[in-house]
Amino acid sequence: MPDFSIGVDLGGTNLRIAAVSAPGEMLEKVTLGTKLALGRDHIIDEMCSAIQRLSGKYKATGAFLGAGIGVPGLIDLQTGMMRKAVNLPGWENYPARAEIERRLSARVVLENDARVAALGEQWLGVARGVPNMAMLTLGTGIGGGIVLGEKIWHGMNGMAGEFGHVTVEPEGYPCACGNRGCSERYASASALLRMAREAVASGQAPSLAGAASADAEFGAKSIYSLAIQGDEAARRIFRTFGRYLGILLADLVNVLNLEMYVIGGGASSAWDAFAPTMFEELRQRSIVYAATAPTDPLRDSSRKEEGASAQTASRSGQETVITRAVLGSDAGLYGAARVAVTAV
Amino acid sequence: MPDFSIGVDLGGTNLRIAAVSAPGEMLEKVTLGTKLALGRDHIIDEMCSAIQRLSGKYKATGAFLGAGIGVPGLIDLQTGMMRKAVNLPGWENYPARAEIERRLSARVVLENDARVAALGEQWLGVARGVPNMAMLTLGTGIGGGIVLGEKIWHGMNGMAGEFGHVTVEPEGYPCACGNRGCSERYASASALLRMAREAVASGQAPSLAGAASADAEFGAKSIYSLAIQGDEAARRIFRTFGRYLGILLADLVNVLNLEMYVIGGGASSAWDAFAPTMFEELRQRSIVYAATAPTDPLRDSSRKEEGASAQTASRSGQETVITRAVLGSDAGLYGAARVAVTAV
Repeated sequence: MPDFSIGVDLGGTNLRIAAVSAPGEMLEKVTLGTKLALGRDHIIDEMCSAIQRLSGKYKATGAFLGAGIGVPGLIDLQTGMMRKAVNLPGWENYPARAEIERRLSARVVLENDARVAALGEQWLGVARGVPNMAMLTLGTGIGGGIVLGEKIWHGMNGMAGEFGHVTVEPEGYPCACGNRGCSERYASASALLRMAREAVASGQAPSLAGAASADAEFGAKSIYSLAIQGDEAARRIFRTFGRYLGILLADLVNVLNLEMYVIGGGASSAWDAFAPTMFEELRQRSIVYAATAPTDPLRDSSRKEEGASAQTASRSGQETVITRAVLGSDAGLYGAARVAVTAV
Repeated sequence: MPDFSIGVDLGGTNLRIAAVSAPGEMLEKVTLGTKLALGRDHIIDEMCSAIQRLSGKYKATGAFLGAGIGVPGLIDLQTGMMRKAVNLPGWENYPARAEIERRLSARVVLENDARVAALGEQWLGVARGVPNMAMLTLGTGIGGGIVLGEKIWHGMNGMAGEFGHVTVEPEGYPCACGNRGCSERYASASALLRMAREAVASGQAPSLAGAASADAEFGAKSIYSLAIQGDEAARRIFRTFGRYLGILLADLVNVLNLEMYVIGGGASSAWDAFAPTMFEELRQRSIVYAATAPTDPLRDSSRKEEGASAQTASRSGQETVITRAVLGSDAGLYGAARVAVTAV
């Protein structure tokens, strides 16, 4: 029986723990709520209990290789501490890795959630067989991860891949990071909501205003529904989203020249609504993309959804592929389990 | 005696060829004019003759390991051809590497000039001992190079490092690449001239107008002279330059999280005039820089010029260093010679 590791996805809402075999088989997956109100130590208790239960269960069949924990925030790899942890009160500058290692008596790797998702898609998802890629996770913000040579590119101290804070509009919307015009202020689920609120306030978006007042759960999905029904105000919001995502991608393609850029996260399900302007900006703004673009990138991506090989174009080493993620939220679990094994 | 390689810097003005020993000693350097008017084949003749003369001369003392040629333009590494060669008529889509290899019967590597300059500064310049760095060459445009693990990071097909075409102002000044608001339209020698022309045309810059009409050689240096004399219009131009260079650097630091970013090229000699706004933007716009900035980056860089070790901070693996290049135009020769030996 194969050796295994544990991958953890610690989000602001859910705490998910999975045992994954070394070849990449999901052995078991547990989903718990993240009880933020009960505090950091309670969350660590729950996480460690679940890891111990799973590792105990599968120890009979193979060696337990360690645990990887994906967390939302900026991590200092040297210290194993979070520098920024907006959604995890009490985790900032707390020696999380050391504490969890002590409790488990096992090797623990703490890693940014978007970086492990990138590794997951590279290992077992749409970028399988593509050694160099990046992933953008479009959620409340924009998470990023770069994989070079099948390993997360950490940079100097684990902070490489902060795509969400690339400036796409110098005098643009303020960001909590202190900058203005960060990409995540334009191409994330929270950006969709802000733009919808502004459209409603302008009085020029009756359908959005109607949906917002009728639907207590009004959110990114509602705006997407209106857009695919042809509502002009909703479509305009996704054109802005696509425009700025295209600027971000153009910058990344010009700087990195990778084989593949994978778009994941909740807001990526609105692909049909934002992809046309995204590709338009990308082609116009990236000299490297213009030289390496597939003849019909939109068609390529739909082909992939129909089951064709996503890697064909990229493996030729001549085409830059921009495509959707395929593993959903499991990408982070697979990647976290993987990083426990491969991190040095 | 040590083995050696030949480095070539083929610019629009000068053709420079150097024999460099494998440990990094400059054995001999030849500077010729690039006689563009006589055509591509004449330039290749001159280059190959000079390489043959130098390699013949030093063959007695060590093995000739090959030639690296730095050229201005976008190169496809697979084919060894230039995809874009604005300043070298006739080189686009011409099998330059194959032809030069045939003539020399030696291993030849064709590489972008800014990438080899980055490798030169990493090998023997300000970034010696810093395995992961990037260099920005501020000339007519902005050249870029990324070095990871002491090797040029090429990306998929040699196009990684196009920093000059990162978008810093989405609706900004048009660029020959087809984009608007590319960084090199704001933070290069040609951008300085454009901004000076605009300031003169506005009627608000009498000193610039006077200097421009009095000086037939009016250029980036003249604008710098006025700026350090306190002329407000010239100072404003460098603040704009620093602002956009800061935006570009903030993007690079957020994406790459490297130990060091080296600023070289002719326009980098105006460092005193643009560095304050550059650092200001960088600190405000990069969440990664804010977390890793030296306490006094400007003081650090001046210390370096006084001979202190530039690598001290970076070697600690905790501080992002932004500093000036030290090898001048020899960076490209050293890097080209190096790439002939290390490229796979």
